[in-house]
Amino acid sequence: MSRVAVNPQLKKAQYAVRGAITTRAAQIQEELANPATAGKYNFDQVIYCNIGNPQSLNQKPLTYNRQVMALVDAPFLLEDEVVCSRFPKDVVARAKATVAAIGGANKTGAYTHSQGYAFVRENVAQFITNRDRRNSGNSNLEAADPNKIFLTDGASTGVKMIMGTILGVTPNDSLMIPIPQYPLYTASLPMMGGHEAPYYLDEDNGWAMTRPELEKSFTQSTEKGHIPRGLVIINPGNPTGQVLTPEIMTDVIEFAHDKNLVVIADEVYQENIYKQKKFHSFREVLLSNNREAIRKEVPLVSLQTTSKGIIGECGRRGGYAEFLNFEPDVFAEINKLASMGLCSNVNGQVMTDLMVKEPVEGEESYESYRNEWDTIFASLKKRAVQLEEQLNDIPGLSCLPVEGSMYGYANLTLPQKFTERVAKENEANGTKLQPDFVWAKELLEATGIVVVPGSGFGQKAGTWHFRTTILPPEPQMEAMAKRMREFQVSFNQQYQ
Amino acid sequence: MSRVAVNPQLKKAQYAVRGAITTRAAQIQEELANPATAGKYNFDQVIYCNIGNPQSLNQKPLTYNRQVMALVDAPFLLEDEVVCSRFPKDVVARAKATVAAIGGANKTGAYTHSQGYAFVRENVAQFITNRDRRNSGNSNLEAADPNKIFLTDGASTGVKMIMGTILGVTPNDSLMIPIPQYPLYTASLPMMGGHEAPYYLDEDNGWAMTRPELEKSFTQSTEKGHIPRGLVIINPGNPTGQVLTPEIMTDVIEFAHDKNLVVIADEVYQENIYKQKKFHSFREVLLSNNREAIRKEVPLVSLQTTSKGIIGECGRRGGYAEFLNFEPDVFAEINKLASMGLCSNVNGQVMTDLMVKEPVEGEESYESYRNEWDTIFASLKKRAVQLEEQLNDIPGLSCLPVEGSMYGYANLTLPQKFTERVAKENEANGTKLQPDFVWAKELLEATGIVVVPGSGFGQKAGTWHFRTTILPPEPQMEAMAKRMREFQVSFNQQYQ
Repeated sequence: MSRVAVNPQLKKAQYAVRGAITTRAAQIQEELANPATAGKYNFDQVIYCNIGNPQSLNQKPLTYNRQVMALVDAPFLLEDEVVCSRFPKDVVARAKATVAAIGGANKTGAYTHSQGYAFVRENVAQFITNRDRRNSGNSNLEAADPNKIFLTDGASTGVKMIMGTILGVTPNDSLMIPIPQYPLYTASLPMMGGHEAPYYLDEDNGWAMTRPELEKSFTQSTEKGHIPRGLVIINPGNPTGQVLTPEIMTDVIEFAHDKNLVVIADEVYQENIYKQKKFHSFREVLLSNNREAIRKEVPLVSLQTTSKGIIGECGRRGGYAEFLNFEPDVFAEINKLASMGLCSNVNGQVMTDLMVKEPVEGEESYESYRNEWDTIFASLKKRAVQLEEQLNDIPGLSCLPVEGSMYGYANLTLPQKFTERVAKENEANGTKLQPDFVWAKELLEATGIVVVPGSGFGQKAGTWHFRTTILPPEPQMEAMAKRMREFQVSFNQQYQ
Repeated sequence: MSRVAVNPQLKKAQYAVRGAITTRAAQIQEELANPATAGKYNFDQVIYCNIGNPQSLNQKPLTYNRQVMALVDAPFLLEDEVVCSRFPKDVVARAKATVAAIGGANKTGAYTHSQGYAFVRENVAQFITNRDRRNSGNSNLEAADPNKIFLTDGASTGVKMIMGTILGVTPNDSLMIPIPQYPLYTASLPMMGGHEAPYYLDEDNGWAMTRPELEKSFTQSTEKGHIPRGLVIINPGNPTGQVLTPEIMTDVIEFAHDKNLVVIADEVYQENIYKQKKFHSFREVLLSNNREAIRKEVPLVSLQTTSKGIIGECGRRGGYAEFLNFEPDVFAEINKLASMGLCSNVNGQVMTDLMVKEPVEGEESYESYRNEWDTIFASLKKRAVQLEEQLNDIPGLSCLPVEGSMYGYANLTLPQKFTERVAKENEANGTKLQPDFVWAKELLEATGIVVVPGSGFGQKAGTWHFRTTILPPEPQMEAMAKRMREFQVSFNQQYQ
């Protein structure tokens, strides 16, 4: 037995995106790098499709952003004419303005205000206001308030901030979360003193969210003696990729109002929409509601990050959380919680600024920036279509259209002979492995492809899935589909 | 009443370093900037002495670090000969090596391994090994293991990581913390499901830590029905600035072994030592113990950051946590907890690398780097002495030698007439303001100087203190002491 006792809620937590399969993948990668062990495998490369980490798969960072960041990190370069002459003029101007807004060259590495740099929050507010006015067609839609925005270390920190505030009120608090969901929610909940109140997305209807399902979930949670405090929506969906319509979003908001729930809108894939769908933020739909009580009373947290979209700067840990309709005393507590971590990292803050305030027409970098942006977007879109087609072409797999996000969430038909084998092995070994986990493990061992089994995201009992990213470069995507098809053909032969 | 119910543990949490006094200071600063309101005050500038944020008070960042970081942020610059010619050769080489170790230019913004870049962890391990062998005089002292190191977003994240692991085992877990302490500990404890087990530092003996006091604290905690899980030591002390000797550290380690406690060594001020004292890490003292059971069995977490020391890059949120003597199953849980946050920010990781691997003799930047480093250190040292002298020269204040850290923690004699006034006002207004808080507030209103009252750190009942940083630039330090003296003379006249 271990001498250090471990928090049982941590032991219970599952975070499949970086779980046992990823650990095994890293071992295989090491073995492949070693000539003595490389021969053990039928492939020469591990293909990581487990995590939305585009730059790790060679997506090129946007040049403008990196140019500005470099000059802000080393502001003395702005005084070197030779160096400056190698940068576009608008980059130099932007970097100078950023350093000035921070308060001068010496201060660029200092702690910021707990909420983040004021000038970045102003630009975030402007971005939100413009986006929602544009998408709603209402140029009078309420403007966002920079003082209600927190710059965060990625969206994860924003999620933990709101969970730390609204959970733990009683030992019976619950949070409504979609199933399937991004596993940060299920993993964090018990550690934050909360319970899951799962609501299911309807795979037969394009992963639809419906009010009756929300009602059912709420009732089930209260019947267990739990008190739902908030409702998480991931739009576009992760891992499911669906994009919500304003109609269902209005239903959700009215439901939240009826039940006195905080709405947590995880909108980190808002730029990643590939089909003829349009993104509407929960904020836009909330502020467009025709009932004043709804507009004024539903507390909403909206989350965004620099990790996804086209920018894909995952490692910067940049992002923001915007709070709407929180009363001042509650907001003060959130602020205190943020202050205990001092501030989010300054490079993430600067990257967030670059995300929300892009070069505009007439500026020297505008065209090259737009070219780079469009190239990345077109490639993501192409691969989203490609992935969906390829998965649907493999026997035993089917995948709904990847409308948005960076993932395909494929439905997996597992032969009875296989699930029986897994059950027998579990009994013999005293393990509780899920059949889709075992399938994903065997896929990895045979092909080097790393996907995340559906049991890590949650799924309707008796159904099996896996999530795979659209991020491998185009030629690798084809190789991946080919290997997966071969594996699956032989798998089906073996178990049928 | 608020519609959103708030976690009562959050409501209870106090984080004085950024509390009501800092909020008021920000308001005053705004009023000073406005000609219409500036006349309300007898001063023209707010002097922030509340937080160890050296660059915000114009401490110049180390040039070498910023040069390397800029080139790593924009790796395409490494292909521009004109740009490279403006940098020292060793900077270019270091940046190239860093980009190569990350895996190439496109990957510099990607999520890293949950523990952080492997090459940085190797350099951290080397730094720790060298430091402890040098300070112990034992060139065979066990080497540090890169696989037991996590790169963290500042030290705060490391603290939360270990607290999240060892607390919450039962509802009665406690953590032994020094009083006075850095308020992150008291603020986080209830939110992490833990209780305080305070042990007092002895002001009459230079803020000494003693084994009898630890025993007493442990017993008092268990008598309350609590189970102490760990023991926090801050060395050099914050806010108290004392530096521990290997003798007392050995006592502490043996005590932890007897009581089965995890030792949490907050060593973020290890470079900030100004008197004839030498820093010894808990790791060094633990591994130098003559009993094998101690060396092998006491679980130790050591924390370091890029925010303090001479580097002072607070906003990078860089740092590391090193784990020693944790069994593999426990370590795996810590790893899972880290993976739920994906990874710490990459700029913080690169800055940590720069902190632990400095330019060496023979490299082009070596001399200028050492000059900058020595200048900052000499100035901090001078101001530490200056602050101590100045505080001791003000009636009603006394301050023990500032051996280390960035703070003076002054003892404040509050006249009975004043404490009675505060008590009366509390009764009349239904408030619970501490007399040292009211004193600090009045100091701010009269002088613009922002300090943190001792009640924010904890203090022996009936004593009053405040913490002030040594960080204002030298000329400002004098102005500060002058204003504080004037305030205090008039304060004493008023209440005597």
